[in-house]
Amino acid sequence: MAAICFLHYIPMNYQNRQWIYATRPDGRVGDEHYVLRESEMSDALSINEVLVRARYISVDPYMRIQQAERNTYDLPHPLGIVQRAGVVGQVIASNSAGFAEGDWVSAYSGWQLYAKCHQSELTKLDAEAAPVTSALGVLGMPGRTAWFGLMEAGKPRPGDTLVVSGAAGAVGSLVAQFGKRAGCRVIGIAGGAAKCSFLTDTLGLDAAVDYRSHATVESLRAAIDAVTGGVDIYFDNVGGMVTDAVIPLIKLRARIVICGAIAQYDGGLDVPDLAPRFLQHMLFKRATIQGILARDFTARMGEMLEVVGPWVKRGEILSQETFIDGFDQLPAALSSLFDGRNLGKLLVRV
Amino acid sequence: MAAICFLHYIPMNYQNRQWIYATRPDGRVGDEHYVLRESEMSDALSINEVLVRARYISVDPYMRIQQAERNTYDLPHPLGIVQRAGVVGQVIASNSAGFAEGDWVSAYSGWQLYAKCHQSELTKLDAEAAPVTSALGVLGMPGRTAWFGLMEAGKPRPGDTLVVSGAAGAVGSLVAQFGKRAGCRVIGIAGGAAKCSFLTDTLGLDAAVDYRSHATVESLRAAIDAVTGGVDIYFDNVGGMVTDAVIPLIKLRARIVICGAIAQYDGGLDVPDLAPRFLQHMLFKRATIQGILARDFTARMGEMLEVVGPWVKRGEILSQETFIDGFDQLPAALSSLFDGRNLGKLLVRV
Repeated sequence: MAAICFLHYIPMNYQNRQWIYATRPDGRVGDEHYVLRESEMSDALSINEVLVRARYISVDPYMRIQQAERNTYDLPHPLGIVQRAGVVGQVIASNSAGFAEGDWVSAYSGWQLYAKCHQSELTKLDAEAAPVTSALGVLGMPGRTAWFGLMEAGKPRPGDTLVVSGAAGAVGSLVAQFGKRAGCRVIGIAGGAAKCSFLTDTLGLDAAVDYRSHATVESLRAAIDAVTGGVDIYFDNVGGMVTDAVIPLIKLRARIVICGAIAQYDGGLDVPDLAPRFLQHMLFKRATIQGILARDFTARMGEMLEVVGPWVKRGEILSQETFIDGFDQLPAALSSLFDGRNLGKLLVRV
Repeated sequence: MAAICFLHYIPMNYQNRQWIYATRPDGRVGDEHYVLRESEMSDALSINEVLVRARYISVDPYMRIQQAERNTYDLPHPLGIVQRAGVVGQVIASNSAGFAEGDWVSAYSGWQLYAKCHQSELTKLDAEAAPVTSALGVLGMPGRTAWFGLMEAGKPRPGDTLVVSGAAGAVGSLVAQFGKRAGCRVIGIAGGAAKCSFLTDTLGLDAAVDYRSHATVESLRAAIDAVTGGVDIYFDNVGGMVTDAVIPLIKLRARIVICGAIAQYDGGLDVPDLAPRFLQHMLFKRATIQGILARDFTARMGEMLEVVGPWVKRGEILSQETFIDGFDQLPAALSSLFDGRNLGKLLVRV
């Protein structure tokens, strides 16, 4: 056991608050699947340990996948522990030479106000280079997903027609911008007129299609066909009817990137609904489908930061964020992702 | 216009017979979609032209795809012309220095007894190196499909579990054997006990599953799961319920090769039936789906022949063939493919 030294040290206690993941949801996740636990936390630290106060806590669609008991990409999220999540916070006490009080850090410390983290679990953030919240967005997991998903699986070429579903979301809005920079013609699909204006007017996409304004798959498909004339790359964040509409529009050697299926996360993963068969289109067009996850590219984060970091620093990439205030709001914030109301990355400010 | 020389030549007439593709099928293709045309054909030949008498005419599932008006990988097969098909025949007259009477050749001359072909349309066959019919099987289009589909899209590694649907068919039986040679554990799916015995006892596969003995997708899936324990490569020739059963069994980084969807060729391509959504499995397993067509690898045929040719010559690859006799039987032979009764490559001997 490591010796712990408190020689010049007056211990202090913090009132910690934690959202404990308590019950697996069948459909929509919400408050009822969590228990709020309050407890005292001393700032006594082991060697190389750091006490972090969360400031921004992430809610992401992938969390809902891990909450299912089966059909996840991983072991299911255990019950009875703090909900895992990415966090940006500040160091309030440090027993590590690498971190000092006041430092901004990112960690995977979950839905809790305070966490003791080993220094190896922390990434120090440079608040001058980019807003600290970008560690949960364009310079973090969503950015990595967008970048490697598009570049490795989507293989964009100048002139390609790229269709992005969930285009106003955390990952989609980045894919759309990366696609423009790669020389693609980019068409975003999103729900509602406001998001579509954001896509064309703010992000500068070539066109946007509001899937909510279409009552049938056929009507949506015709609208996408009208603005694309065929699809070279489909970057899919949503699945469901939007994907049903797009797939028959693929061109020869199209690349379909499966990044998410948020339309199916409210229980549709375990008992999937029915959709038209479409694999013959893959044959006719000699197309590919590839599923991608951010974790597969964690080790290559440096590659991405080298390219995207300067763009962010120069303000050439818009990292749209939506904030919800209050630690109490975390379960509701997660739930709201599945209503599709957030623009860009959704963060809870605590 | 090229001069034609008949100096030492006594013209001769042949009674040609041709199956004309006359009407597009909605469901199963058959006699009613063809007209049998009989006509005289002289053996007058232009320079570099060769008169070929068909001996073996191919029927292949892809023909049914091309017969649809839309949703094909190509322009639809025109009405009112000879049904296109691969043929093995013999030269009966030649105005080309490269071909002599009696030579065995392969051509894409369609469902007719006699055809005048430019020398550039013919491939001379070496009847000593392999049975001439192998030009329509293992050393022809089905072999190319199997080889490049498996090697390029399936990317087999020793120890991989390879599941082949339509495993007793022309392409499937070759994929299965190529997979064994690549060191895979190979499980074939086929219809009926006789085909399954062929797969295990004759081809030496590790296991076979008779999809016809399962009333539900769930039961079929359980049977495939029991013999595979998870699937690294799924080489799909059939689509439909077999594919519904296999996809949820894919392992991390699985490769799904879409080579055919014969279960859907009886009208199911234009008005697809419904099946459970499955793209989330692609995400969870970071898997790929790739559609492949033989034509994309035509230019690389030499690469394949270099490897597979010696195997065929040494009798190490079983090219199972089923013969139907009689030119009149061609439409019925094509139709019979969709009953799944043939073992290996189906050929009509004329």
